Amino acid sequence: MPAHRPVNLALIGAGRIGSFHAESVARRLVDADLVAVADPAPGAAGRLAASLDAPKAYTSVSELLANPEVDGVIIATPARFHTSVVVEAARAGKAVFCEKPMALTLEEADEAIAATKSAGVPLQVGFNRRWDQAFYEGRAAIDAGKVGSVQLLRSLTRDPGPYRGNPEKTPLWTIFYETLIHDFDTLLWLNPTAKPVEVTAIADALVRPDFAGNGFHDTAVVTIRFDNGSIAVAEANFCAMYGYDIRGEVFGSGGMVMMGDVRRSSMTLYDKNGVSNDTWRRDTDHFVNGYTAQLASFVDAIRTGTVTGPTGEDARNALAIALACITSVTERRAIPLSSL
Amino acid sequence: MPAHRPVNLALIGAGRIGSFHAESVARRLVDADLVAVADPAPGAAGRLAASLDAPKAYTSVSELLANPEVDGVIIATPARFHTSVVVEAARAGKAVFCEKPMALTLEEADEAIAATKSAGVPLQVGFNRRWDQAFYEGRAAIDAGKVGSVQLLRSLTRDPGPYRGNPEKTPLWTIFYETLIHDFDTLLWLNPTAKPVEVTAIADALVRPDFAGNGFHDTAVVTIRFDNGSIAVAEANFCAMYGYDIRGEVFGSGGMVMMGDVRRSSMTLYDKNGVSNDTWRRDTDHFVNGYTAQLASFVDAIRTGTVTGPTGEDARNALAIALACITSVTERRAIPLSSL
Amino acid sequence: MPAHRPVNLALIGAGRIGSFHAESVARRLVDADLVAVADPAPGAAGRLAASLDAPKAYTSVSELLANPEVDGVIIATPARFHTSVVVEAARAGKAVFCEKPMALTLEEADEAIAATKSAGVPLQVGFNRRWDQAFYEGRAAIDAGKVGSVQLLRSLTRDPGPYRGNPEKTPLWTIFYETLIHDFDTLLWLNPTAKPVEVTAIADALVRPDFAGNGFHDTAVVTIRFDNGSIAVAEANFCAMYGYDIRGEVFGSGGMVMMGDVRRSSMTLYDKNGVSNDTWRRDTDHFVNGYTAQLASFVDAIRTGTVTGPTGEDARNALAIALACITSVTERRAIPLSSL
Amino acid sequence: MPAHRPVNLALIGAGRIGSFHAESVARRLVDADLVAVADPAPGAAGRLAASLDAPKAYTSVSELLANPEVDGVIIATPARFHTSVVVEAARAGKAVFCEKPMALTLEEADEAIAATKSAGVPLQVGFNRRWDQAFYEGRAAIDAGKVGSVQLLRSLTRDPGPYRGNPEKTPLWTIFYETLIHDFDTLLWLNPTAKPVEVTAIADALVRPDFAGNGFHDTAVVTIRFDNGSIAVAEANFCAMYGYDIRGEVFGSGGMVMMGDVRRSSMTLYDKNGVSNDTWRRDTDHFVNGYTAQLASFVDAIRTGTVTGPTGEDARNALAIALACITSVTERRAIPLSSL
Repeated sequence: MPAHRPVNLALIGAGRIGSFHAESVARRLVDADLVAVADPAPGAAGRLAASLDAPKAYTSVSELLANPEVDGVIIATPARFHTSVVVEAARAGKAVFCEKPMALTLEEADEAIAATKSAGVPLQVGFNRRWDQAFYEGRAAIDAGKVGSVQLLRSLTRDPGPYRGNPEKTPLWTIFYETLIHDFDTLLWLNPTAKPVEVTAIADALVRPDFAGNGFHDTAVVTIRFDNGSIAVAEANFCAMYGYDIRGEVFGSGGMVMMGDVRRSSMTLYDKNGVSNDTWRRDTDHFVNGYTAQLASFVDAIRTGTVTGPTGEDARNALAIALACITSVTERRAIPLSSL
Repeated sequence: MPAHRPVNLALIGAGRIGSFHAESVARRLVDADLVAVADPAPGAAGRLAASLDAPKAYTSVSELLANPEVDGVIIATPARFHTSVVVEAARAGKAVFCEKPMALTLEEADEAIAATKSAGVPLQVGFNRRWDQAFYEGRAAIDAGKVGSVQLLRSLTRDPGPYRGNPEKTPLWTIFYETLIHDFDTLLWLNPTAKPVEVTAIADALVRPDFAGNGFHDTAVVTIRFDNGSIAVAEANFCAMYGYDIRGEVFGSGGMVMMGDVRRSSMTLYDKNGVSNDTWRRDTDHFVNGYTAQLASFVDAIRTGTVTGPTGEDARNALAIALACITSVTERRAIPLSSL
Repeated sequence: MPAHRPVNLALIGAGRIGSFHAESVARRLVDADLVAVADPAPGAAGRLAASLDAPKAYTSVSELLANPEVDGVIIATPARFHTSVVVEAARAGKAVFCEKPMALTLEEADEAIAATKSAGVPLQVGFNRRWDQAFYEGRAAIDAGKVGSVQLLRSLTRDPGPYRGNPEKTPLWTIFYETLIHDFDTLLWLNPTAKPVEVTAIADALVRPDFAGNGFHDTAVVTIRFDNGSIAVAEANFCAMYGYDIRGEVFGSGGMVMMGDVRRSSMTLYDKNGVSNDTWRRDTDHFVNGYTAQLASFVDAIRTGTVTGPTGEDARNALAIALACITSVTERRAIPLSSL
Repeated sequence: MPAHRPVNLALIGAGRIGSFHAESVARRLVDADLVAVADPAPGAAGRLAASLDAPKAYTSVSELLANPEVDGVIIATPARFHTSVVVEAARAGKAVFCEKPMALTLEEADEAIAATKSAGVPLQVGFNRRWDQAFYEGRAAIDAGKVGSVQLLRSLTRDPGPYRGNPEKTPLWTIFYETLIHDFDTLLWLNPTAKPVEVTAIADALVRPDFAGNGFHDTAVVTIRFDNGSIAVAEANFCAMYGYDIRGEVFGSGGMVMMGDVRRSSMTLYDKNGVSNDTWRRDTDHFVNGYTAQLASFVDAIRTGTVTGPTGEDARNALAIALACITSVTERRAIPLSSL
């Protein structure tokens, strides 16, 4: 594509995070334009497109993909549709940015990867934490040898409370497929020279114990052993009353890096109750710069043909751990990753 | 102007901060375009305009102001030219964003205010700290009564070291006109119900003591008394070896707010030397979001006709304190502000 | 015993921590006297006693226990002797403070508990973290309902580096018996209404991989499930290059408490390398106040007959988890605690 | 005196801080005994002595000083009596620890110094911050050259609120004589190679504005210029609703040290209101270790004959600044210190 016109991006799936990505393209990325939105819900695409001055709105993904002006798509549909849309978009010759999880099975993952390879289009996946200032500084410190050989890792996701989800409508294993998948990518990315070899997971319904019998899980702890001996713990919970809490910790033979702070800014109040800080309450507030940088990276990938962010293979690797977790919870045992 | 086209902005003065503002307009503001750059240095405007895809470059301010496409100008010339350019821009009907200090005398300040009022154009001044997340949260806490009656305030600016300025080329009183003017605005803004009544300043050349005899100052401490009894201290130094350190503190009958942290992110390294964080080394890194928000506010002012950021009057008020400091240092006494 | 004379304490085992406890008694506890020291190594007891003005030194424990002036003993022998010395001391009618682990088997633990009960003497165990200011404030917050129902817990011990231990002389399973036993007590104590039901442990030799084949472990991660659904992670490593790092975290339906900071004080240095703090390098520096308070509590237990600190039963509960860890590592599976 | 018996200390003045010092001697210092208490208020000395098992109580200072068992005295009378008691104690051959301010005039200070010199007894003054862990680490960093040449300093004292003092009974200039005298000593001690040359002070009644006309001051800001060009700001307020806030900051050519944190421990609560820490509410809680170390230093001074803590000369130097502050407030001008 010409270097001197903006990249034309289209959104597929106008839900919460999709709408936010569309807004990032339209309002926060200067060298990209939002040219279309597709969503099957009547009116949804049109309303979002109108609010962001995007010229086209569709209820059909295929019609959007047939639009020759679209250089790349941002896929933010429900997760179960991700792979098929990736494949269709690739076949239409569009660059693909896909929200996590890119796929729900390894076969799907392979299919998505193959389709984009075959079409020669970039495929980038929505592991946005890699662009958070603290996390990429942490990775840089690891690369610079400041923690030495990695021995212990931790990554956690605590979604902000109060919890407003509906356990009945939450797909089974959401906590692994949608939440902890972030932590799995983070842990793999922060332990760059190692491969995971064994996974053990515990999951429960502690936020909503009334749904404990339905297969609903809102709390999980996962341990991952790597081939260099290092051990990681990932942890998630759907209801942190104090805010959106994302943290990482990597400890090694030379030291440790810690990343993440739920405090919203350095503004600190001292009053009769003590010392306090307000907190981040939404991912889209906390990570606004990282979300923008993630899409800027996708724009670069379109311009250069090279994906520097998380790839389809990265998505597959994180998915393999999520799948092992599901088996581990079901069979109550440690799962070797070679068995996948 | 039409709501649905970007605002057309032009830069006057392509130095360090001007170039950064131009980049903010071109790269970080979506609903504004950089349409022109003027700088008298041969080639300077052209190079900057080319790098940011701005269509026009001028060596003459008057020619830029004659360009009917320009809705508003960003004035980032050397300070001694600010007022005359504000006046000329206002007469040309352009909205005006002027870097601090807007003027070097109260007469100039009055002239700039009168010219923009008379022309009916918005006038906003570059006190960017008001848009820093921590500082505006601090002001909000004060407005919400969380510190009670304000009693003690502190604001400081420590420019990052090593110091690379040339004391021989630094205009006299730069520490008050250009550096502490930020702190004076901050202190006035954080003490919204009070008026300053007396100023005492101490200034010295401690970073470059070899220039102490030339009137050069690189270190200053200022105390300001307000009509509600509150007392503020402003402090500046040109060489903080550890980074770009901007902090504020407001203490009152109910508590305190503190704002500002030189740490660059939550990424914390623990190693054999202890616990450490990297720091902000440049204003344009530390305050990138605030600088963008400041210009977004100017764009809003152009669209709505209402300036919600710092006005010409705010610039005059901060200047009055800077001028009192100069007299205080010269005459070695406290200066009542009514005497100005 | 009379309220108005100091309690007479004797030390059994003049190693590193025993010597420190003796010093605490002699120098930091005002209402207790160090009256005797026993150690089988020739001269060891005598040297320590002399340096602390303790009147008696023995190479025989039995002789020390026969001293009628001794009200209570502090047992700091190698762990494998703990139980037999507890029993002998109890039979001699002495109050017993025993370093962790109080026993290496549940049978031993029962024996120690029975002997002290039968003799009617207080038995307190050396889980010193309960007296650390941050940890007891954390427990108080939990008791006050500030975290709601406990859901996720973490406790970690990282011994300061560089690691100077001799893997060949380190008893098998030291990481569970001696190190993580602290974390197990901490987790049980911070989750006061729950009982542990299942334990899974991973252990490895990452600090000294050259000893990985000998059964030596220097790194471990343990997950514990409780009967209220809460899940705890305990983690240990023998070589934190940055200092002595002890932390706890308890997350629940209402919020979270975090405890522990390796920074030595609020003294913060800002220099060309960034922002930094020195760290605690030794347990006896970091926890000096807690160690003293622990022994003051033992003195109170002697005076009042009531142990308010960790009891023999607490020692048994923590030991049960350590034993389950050993089985878990050996058999590579989750261990139900009812099976013990 | 013999090295192997405890030092015998006596308290003169059984008020709040005196009683606390007595308790430190009786309960927290092992190699010192509290042997006597004197206080003119009927029963006061007796009650305190009884509660701490001190054998003697007096209403007469002279009688206490005639007790040959007393090695040293801790003077904690109202400030106006300090000098005369120091002189009388010195003449009685007792080592002297005197609370701040040691004197209210320079003549008194000289008299106290001369009396103790003439008697050959140690004289130490109660500037307890020097023993706070953060502050002495700060001074050590300065001595090690880590801040380079000192340029800017800050020290502040904010007493905990709510304010319960009686402005009518508060001696004039208490804020300088009793409160800021700590900060003056701290600033002199943290700037060890410099001498103060000029002082400017502002004081007001902001906590109790209803007493503003009576000469009562509860808020003050002081600037001090030193002969090396460095500039210090000292600040005090009688009512910090958030706790007992003592901080220091020293900035120089190489960096900065900051000392002091009102947070009580690392225990941090995260809940629906954000992130919070409890605070220190009393000097005797916050600085308990420093207060004990201060008296241990006095005991050492008695044993060795050498005072390593703040001396009578240090007390005189801090007083000289307090006196300059009083003149500065009265005459509303900067006061050269050579004029004292």
